[in-house]
Amino acid sequence: MFLREAVYHRPKQNFAYAADRQTLHLRVRAKRGDLVRADAIVGDKYAWERTAASVPMRLFASDELFDYWETAVVPPYRRLRYAFKLTAEDDTVYLTEKGFADRLAPNPDEFFDFPYINPVDVFAPPSWVKDAVFYQIFPERFANGDPSLDPEDVQPWGGEPTPRNFFGGDLKGVRDHLDHLERLGVNAIYFTPVFEATTNHKYDTTDYMKVDPHFGTNEDLKALVEECHGRGIRVVLDAVFNHAGKTFPPFVDVLEKGAESEYAGWFHVREFPLRIEDGIPTYETFAFEPIMPKLNTEHADVKKYLLDVARYWVEEIGIDGWRLDVANEVDHAFWREFRQTVKAANPEAYILGEIWHDSMMWLQGDQFDAVMNYPFTNAVLDFFAKDSIDAAGFANAIGGQLAAYPQTVTEAAFNLLDSHDTARLLTLCGGSEKRMKLAALFQLTYPGVPCIYYGDEVGMAGGGDPGCRGCMVWDEAGQNAGLLRFYSETIALRRTYGAFRDADIAFLQAERGSGTLVYERRGTDGSRFIVAMNAGVLPAEVSASADSRSWQDAYSGEPALVVDGSLRTVLPAFGYAVWRQV
Amino acid sequence: MFLREAVYHRPKQNFAYAADRQTLHLRVRAKRGDLVRADAIVGDKYAWERTAASVPMRLFASDELFDYWETAVVPPYRRLRYAFKLTAEDDTVYLTEKGFADRLAPNPDEFFDFPYINPVDVFAPPSWVKDAVFYQIFPERFANGDPSLDPEDVQPWGGEPTPRNFFGGDLKGVRDHLDHLERLGVNAIYFTPVFEATTNHKYDTTDYMKVDPHFGTNEDLKALVEECHGRGIRVVLDAVFNHAGKTFPPFVDVLEKGAESEYAGWFHVREFPLRIEDGIPTYETFAFEPIMPKLNTEHADVKKYLLDVARYWVEEIGIDGWRLDVANEVDHAFWREFRQTVKAANPEAYILGEIWHDSMMWLQGDQFDAVMNYPFTNAVLDFFAKDSIDAAGFANAIGGQLAAYPQTVTEAAFNLLDSHDTARLLTLCGGSEKRMKLAALFQLTYPGVPCIYYGDEVGMAGGGDPGCRGCMVWDEAGQNAGLLRFYSETIALRRTYGAFRDADIAFLQAERGSGTLVYERRGTDGSRFIVAMNAGVLPAEVSASADSRSWQDAYSGEPALVVDGSLRTVLPAFGYAVWRQV
Repeated sequence: MFLREAVYHRPKQNFAYAADRQTLHLRVRAKRGDLVRADAIVGDKYAWERTAASVPMRLFASDELFDYWETAVVPPYRRLRYAFKLTAEDDTVYLTEKGFADRLAPNPDEFFDFPYINPVDVFAPPSWVKDAVFYQIFPERFANGDPSLDPEDVQPWGGEPTPRNFFGGDLKGVRDHLDHLERLGVNAIYFTPVFEATTNHKYDTTDYMKVDPHFGTNEDLKALVEECHGRGIRVVLDAVFNHAGKTFPPFVDVLEKGAESEYAGWFHVREFPLRIEDGIPTYETFAFEPIMPKLNTEHADVKKYLLDVARYWVEEIGIDGWRLDVANEVDHAFWREFRQTVKAANPEAYILGEIWHDSMMWLQGDQFDAVMNYPFTNAVLDFFAKDSIDAAGFANAIGGQLAAYPQTVTEAAFNLLDSHDTARLLTLCGGSEKRMKLAALFQLTYPGVPCIYYGDEVGMAGGGDPGCRGCMVWDEAGQNAGLLRFYSETIALRRTYGAFRDADIAFLQAERGSGTLVYERRGTDGSRFIVAMNAGVLPAEVSASADSRSWQDAYSGEPALVVDGSLRTVLPAFGYAVWRQV
Repeated sequence: MFLREAVYHRPKQNFAYAADRQTLHLRVRAKRGDLVRADAIVGDKYAWERTAASVPMRLFASDELFDYWETAVVPPYRRLRYAFKLTAEDDTVYLTEKGFADRLAPNPDEFFDFPYINPVDVFAPPSWVKDAVFYQIFPERFANGDPSLDPEDVQPWGGEPTPRNFFGGDLKGVRDHLDHLERLGVNAIYFTPVFEATTNHKYDTTDYMKVDPHFGTNEDLKALVEECHGRGIRVVLDAVFNHAGKTFPPFVDVLEKGAESEYAGWFHVREFPLRIEDGIPTYETFAFEPIMPKLNTEHADVKKYLLDVARYWVEEIGIDGWRLDVANEVDHAFWREFRQTVKAANPEAYILGEIWHDSMMWLQGDQFDAVMNYPFTNAVLDFFAKDSIDAAGFANAIGGQLAAYPQTVTEAAFNLLDSHDTARLLTLCGGSEKRMKLAALFQLTYPGVPCIYYGDEVGMAGGGDPGCRGCMVWDEAGQNAGLLRFYSETIALRRTYGAFRDADIAFLQAERGSGTLVYERRGTDGSRFIVAMNAGVLPAEVSASADSRSWQDAYSGEPALVVDGSLRTVLPAFGYAVWRQV
């Protein structure tokens, strides 16, 4: 007998989806440990007798309460009826859309249905994304390449960042330092906003069609993008379409003319004239921030304006995608049109939403290619940085995330560990470089697109905004060369071997009460790795079955010690090992 | 302790949705019987301290394994963070996005998030739909009003229907009999296809812009629609956009010219020339039916053509909506554009998809207003017609359906008991008029739009296609006057009292092994009913707490017997009672 209440399947979303134009992935959930096997009974609804088959499923992920089983099926005619056969030690039950049954319903009409794989509906992020390693740049703080553009009250480079000060970072500064990015091995940049705005973070846009004069010109950006492309580096900009800035001309007009303004419908005004009452603006804003009035993205003129913006920077400037600020507060309908506009301009553009919570509804193929994967961030920080969960808790959190999204979503997710919105990774790790390296090693060996926040790689620290927005350290004496080497070597491994980019991950060791984590990664290119980490303060013995093949240390290339058919080592506190099957 | 594996919540879909532009519904699932109460902890994410509140939830539905709890919340600023407090007899646990916790997380960032109610994303079917009672007409078999239009080989009215014969039904025949529809009390017609085609069912369209000449002209249809509107009856047509007919000119062109045809991209051709090999067409079709080539609805020209069709009949002919044939095999992207096109032509048009399976992904606000609710059909037939489930099984099936969709979806669902695709209700009931009346009574007192298949109301029988497509019986001697009166009286009750149209339903009696069903219906208009049915062959005693108010028989208006504060009666085999609180 197994626990029926634990079993879950609902077609579409993460439980039955087209992984590509030919292939469906089917998944079913059961109580952890309940099933010894699961099979999918599949066939074409209009040719059942001729096409029916039983396909074994594999246990691909587990979390605290559940196991998740999965299989891939290529339907002969793009459509699939299916049921599940769930086998426990002493019990076999079938699951159809009608519920549980001891025998398979004679009528496949009662089965689950995936009606048709229509290509246009398939979630399909750009092909380059899976192989990308991103680098996030906050332009005002990365490098000052052209002091003639500096704001009037610019501070000396390297000073204490405050909410309102400026240090003169600009596009020329980025261009001057592309060698650093190439050496690090990243192949994509995400810029926080570069459009004209009053603040140092530029999230209060004045003019969506113009690079901020303190950063440079539209032509400068175009030249930077072209140089990046020449180096194999893609460029993604920040689209702040949820809200504008207080100096955005249509908002200024509404501030001045109230309900009479021709732009009155561009915003969400509860009461004219616009004002602040008891700290609450009489118009909708981001949070309750008066300088960030929420745009009415259902208004035809606003839509046209923003979609023109979206198209311009892709078509004219050549950027490779958009990161969408506060993406989940904007309507789904707008994002659908946004996707069509952007993909028409460049089918390979990456659309990345800022959503901190469950994001399934934005990742169905019609809206985003990815979201900023903060649930991943939180799990990694809880285990490696804060020590607030053990290895079992971490493996469960990761397993739950693997199960919560299609494999194709997992492989395109934007896996960051920090950003301009959080404290820096090193600081989150309490200043421990060793913890930081474990966190980064996990990030760089896990499916999904890793993103490194500028300066982390040279050991920059910093608390939450504004502390995390310090000036990039360019003086080599102030850089942590060992950390930089670790990042570049690990990025190189990731970019060389498909194992680190494909979704297949198996936790080999992740016990309750332990900080020792061992997992295996396999790539469709045949590459295979075992990664072992000790996130504890005492040395830890680790072993993993070596399958009687030859293994080597992935970094050094030295042969790995295999004893009795197992890879074995003792990891020091916060030590790690990465073994490659050769 | 309660069963954690049984608890389920995932934001959006049927678990957290905007019921209107102000109101969110939150739901959580638990093992049946586990919880004694549930509360939602809610607040604004940017003003948590000031807005946080605890809102009690109500147990609104149950199925075999689970209870479903629900509450409605009006967020102060259109956005909501929330968690659940789940209380069992001896256990209280909080559920957030991070999982279960004994204490409420101090940080609402870990809660569930409904980021924003954006009006354009709210599922909002036309306001008239909830109050509609539909009547389905298969035009070739309803009435022959103009013999001059008859096909050459027309058969005498009332003959045996076969897959290919014709009886001469036409639009004039419908117009001649609108009095019958008005007397019956229906206020909407769903016509199976009326466009030019070769078959009697017209699902193989030749010309999407033209009424079939055997039915009349476009002008005839327009006049019929206008007359219907004058009588308060709305008209919905059948859009067969998944596939065309073999005589559809673009398909004829591809048949003739193969890959050279300018329409080659309009279809899904696996191999030219088009042919049938081992019974399988070398082009995709509906099922494997060679005369129904699947349209490529991703092709720009096909989209434009079909969207022009969709617009024309709404704008020029004035129809009130579309029923979409084989809706789930067409891409979601097409249906989104279809919705925008149709709603631009008439915001109050009803968009009804033919989907026999779980349909949540089409009912998010961006595609359909409703689907043909066959899961409802199946449950009603299993209990009332086939006696294959007991009252408990029926209440569980209905409870599961209530929980599977938002309340707004339930109230607009198209609840049919039979159609041109199934045997007739009377036949499904083994010829038992009494069983049929119970099934219809449930249908007409349940939330969602009931649809009566032409002729059922006068006692027509018939097996599956072609048996169910017989000629309408107009000779009063052949009509079942008692059944007709039952239908018209029950429809009148439904149309008079909101209780029958609102979603609130509570099963008061539905025991294992029993055929006795008692349920209560309450309307936001203050109306309140108790319906009792005996779907068994022996008399059954029923009682329901009368709340010491006055009750009467809803049909006769006679006072109901209240004994010791309870409504009591003995229902004969297949008897029923409908009591209204007065």
